[in-house]
Amino acid sequence: MRVLGVDPGSRLCGYAVIDVSDRRACSYVECGVLSPERTGSAETRLGSIACWLTDVINELRPTVMAVEDVFVGKNPRSGLALAQARGSVLAVAGLSGLVVYSYAPALIKQSVTGKGNAPKMQVANMVSALLGLRTPPEADAADALAVATTHGVRFDIDRRTQSHGGRPPAVKALQR
Amino acid sequence: MRVLGVDPGSRLCGYAVIDVSDRRACSYVECGVLSPERTGSAETRLGSIACWLTDVINELRPTVMAVEDVFVGKNPRSGLALAQARGSVLAVAGLSGLVVYSYAPALIKQSVTGKGNAPKMQVANMVSALLGLRTPPEADAADALAVATTHGVRFDIDRRTQSHGGRPPAVKALQR
Repeated sequence: MRVLGVDPGSRLCGYAVIDVSDRRACSYVECGVLSPERTGSAETRLGSIACWLTDVINELRPTVMAVEDVFVGKNPRSGLALAQARGSVLAVAGLSGLVVYSYAPALIKQSVTGKGNAPKMQVANMVSALLGLRTPPEADAADALAVATTHGVRFDIDRRTQSHGGRPPAVKALQR
Repeated sequence: MRVLGVDPGSRLCGYAVIDVSDRRACSYVECGVLSPERTGSAETRLGSIACWLTDVINELRPTVMAVEDVFVGKNPRSGLALAQARGSVLAVAGLSGLVVYSYAPALIKQSVTGKGNAPKMQVANMVSALLGLRTPPEADAADALAVATTHGVRFDIDRRTQSHGGRPPAVKALQR
């Protein structure tokens, strides 16, 4: 299974592609941050991100997309901007025929670090270690790697739980 | 100026195209509701709407897009779903090179009916009368016509105010 993790944003969009083997091993393929011009309008920025993300999908051929859930927090305006960015990413997935799995922020942190309230830096360091990266990537790319890894782990949990009723497995990563 | 008005929704998306002449006259071109399968996933529905809206743009060649603002109301969940739908529509506009103008719901009602708190049915009837339609269109298409007409009127107000400092003109429609 090749997972495309996406961290949608109205100004920057992190993406990450990992392979997940049948033996639950996650291996790094590529990650990065799609960064349209900051001075552009919302539609120009979202259009550019949609275009570049389509290129990533066409080139790296993921089999599934994983995205973080969006909630309305203390600042409803930023929640709406995030939801807009997420909507454009979902449309790209739909147009590319990719099924999307959503994960709550706390579940992503829990899956990667073991703590649902872990700070962002700890998530970045842990996901880098799990995937054998020399240095942690940019923040948005690290978040995308985290959601992709979460899908790799959770997908496996669901399958194992269904077939064997076994305990959730720990994350296992190939060195790179 | 050819205006594409869009009423984004997570299950249905209204669209409307009108022409606005230099003499502030609005004439109807086309309107309708894009309706993906209700049972599909969010990404499938948003992808279908994005695809069909792109077809509308390629065929009818609008010069500008007008969309209603989204707010977080009593139900944050539906606000986020609307924002997602709006984001996918903005991405389509960006990819098609269309500039997007946003209007608050109260301003749209005010521009079409003269009352910022007019009920939806009154907006639909008024916009149908303004554009010379025999019968009001479906609700989502009527909302799209209303935002398109609002842009026709407001755009003209802005231009007149800039050049003449005159009073906002009334809506004037070509009969059809």
